Amino acid sequence: MGGDLAPRMVVEGSALALRRMPDVRFLFCGDEAHVAREMALYPALGPVASIRHTTVAVKSDDRPSQALRHSRDSSMGLAIQAVKDGAADVAVSAGNTGALMAMSKFMLKTMPGIERPALIGLLPTRRGTSAMLDLGANVECDEDNLVQFAIMGAAYAGAILGLERPTVGLLNVGVEELKGNESVRLASDKLRHMDLPFEFVGFVEGDGIGLGAVDVFVCDGFSGNVALKASEGIARFIAGLMGEAFRSNLLTKLGYLFAAKGMKALQRRLDPNRYNGGVFLGLNGLVVKSHGSANAAGFASAIGVAVDMVRDGILHHIANDLERLGAATGTSRQAAAS
Amino acid sequence: MGGDLAPRMVVEGSALALRRMPDVRFLFCGDEAHVAREMALYPALGPVASIRHTTVAVKSDDRPSQALRHSRDSSMGLAIQAVKDGAADVAVSAGNTGALMAMSKFMLKTMPGIERPALIGLLPTRRGTSAMLDLGANVECDEDNLVQFAIMGAAYAGAILGLERPTVGLLNVGVEELKGNESVRLASDKLRHMDLPFEFVGFVEGDGIGLGAVDVFVCDGFSGNVALKASEGIARFIAGLMGEAFRSNLLTKLGYLFAAKGMKALQRRLDPNRYNGGVFLGLNGLVVKSHGSANAAGFASAIGVAVDMVRDGILHHIANDLERLGAATGTSRQAAAS
Repeated sequence: MGGDLAPRMVVEGSALALRRMPDVRFLFCGDEAHVAREMALYPALGPVASIRHTTVAVKSDDRPSQALRHSRDSSMGLAIQAVKDGAADVAVSAGNTGALMAMSKFMLKTMPGIERPALIGLLPTRRGTSAMLDLGANVECDEDNLVQFAIMGAAYAGAILGLERPTVGLLNVGVEELKGNESVRLASDKLRHMDLPFEFVGFVEGDGIGLGAVDVFVCDGFSGNVALKASEGIARFIAGLMGEAFRSNLLTKLGYLFAAKGMKALQRRLDPNRYNGGVFLGLNGLVVKSHGSANAAGFASAIGVAVDMVRDGILHHIANDLERLGAATGTSRQAAAS
Repeated sequence: MGGDLAPRMVVEGSALALRRMPDVRFLFCGDEAHVAREMALYPALGPVASIRHTTVAVKSDDRPSQALRHSRDSSMGLAIQAVKDGAADVAVSAGNTGALMAMSKFMLKTMPGIERPALIGLLPTRRGTSAMLDLGANVECDEDNLVQFAIMGAAYAGAILGLERPTVGLLNVGVEELKGNESVRLASDKLRHMDLPFEFVGFVEGDGIGLGAVDVFVCDGFSGNVALKASEGIARFIAGLMGEAFRSNLLTKLGYLFAAKGMKALQRRLDPNRYNGGVFLGLNGLVVKSHGSANAAGFASAIGVAVDMVRDGILHHIANDLERLGAATGTSRQAAAS
């Protein structure tokens, strides 16, 4: 029931996803009558979908703490519960991000070896597509959090981008004498001395994001969230300027008619629906966050991300990597405890 | 002698600036013979410019600590010294950012009431032009630093954007339950209870940058640097895609011919040379940082920023604001010292 256009967009997006991935099964959590009415529009869904009924929905302006106290029986709560009890392999929600994060963390708990979960997402770059984490789950991160993010991010790039040995970089600033804060420097030192299943390339600066300097950008949730949203805002601003440029006079309007095909390709390349589907990594279960404003195609993309992770067995990969590298990531915590 | 095209670009940029601002006087710091040769190309400079000679230049890859130890008699060092001894009202350099920051801080010292200087710059937004600080001078900031940045940033917006009562916002994330880290929350609380000479609007998210949600964006130097560079990188990526879109076939090429005028206006609007000129605020003297890759027009923009600040008496404004608000900003330091 989450998202601006739910449940219609959720059901239609599922029908779209089913056409691409015919062996997926769906468990819709929400108002049974309402969902069934939407499902009736897509006969293919009938045999492969069931409904867990609830009329409770987390509102987009509910605080995470409110949601935690009052909304365990909401559509969001039921979806996470389905992952917890094994009825579903992964939950996909277009609802309130803060509530989804808080409830996922509380109900699923973090994996052994992970102190904090992270929100990871895809973004378009000049080289193609890259992933970035954390996008806002944790605003303050120490070096061990960043190392764990790097390990989880690389596993995600393997599952979603199909990369055998992704490149991973730590976002950092380039003008300061000591090049960044302590967490970033210590995380880099640690990663340099670990036998990693990915290629750690060291520090990258913010302009590396648009270039696609690495496959996975790792940073704390504060700068990651600011960088992602700043990029989205600038992209919208430039798109607006382009629209104005084409509308400025008759000649430029004519120009648009001729250039329309190229411009449409550009818009497709940057379409946020293509990159929809943030993932909370580091929990004992998979939860995917769709943009609240996603359309059916965007929701289908988020389902695609979810299915790719399940098929890849990403949770096992992360658990294995953490276990193998455990001594290295755990060092400072042992030292801190001793 | 700093920047990719110095000293030619510096002298040509000064000649451009002189045409716009005929009462400005120049003191070039660098290799006398080389600078004089360039000056000869612009006869108008002769009567209004002099030279402080040195053959030492900070290299673009010198570490700030190296520059501090060995380069006090470099062109950069002489320019800062000229501000310190009153021979110049403001220094403008296209050289090594880290070295310029370290030497400026060491030679000029911070103003009373300012713990750390900040790097501020201008950026294009949908509403026009906004300012953002800190862009990388301080990667970790407490609430008092952020409050001081807000006061300095508002004074800068008054001097450079000509705003009587600029709007100021604190960059923050939007998905976390507690909305940001402690510094940001405490800074917001403090600013809400001060009698400010600007309008503090509270928190803004990263996508507000492209929209121009406020006149001045305040943040720590880590997220500010990442956000600025991420924005630049995305803008370059989209510009590249646009170029490809227009080149994709004969029709789209024809489209470009028709739309060229609108596209040129767009490029002018986003031209980094127009927004050239970062400023180190919070020191006992004014230092402006030009992009190393700026052309003469860009360097002239940086000189324009420098002259506007001097004419406005920005250092006095900041000192007055700090004194008037001193009790409020100083509270936590007194508490910490008691």
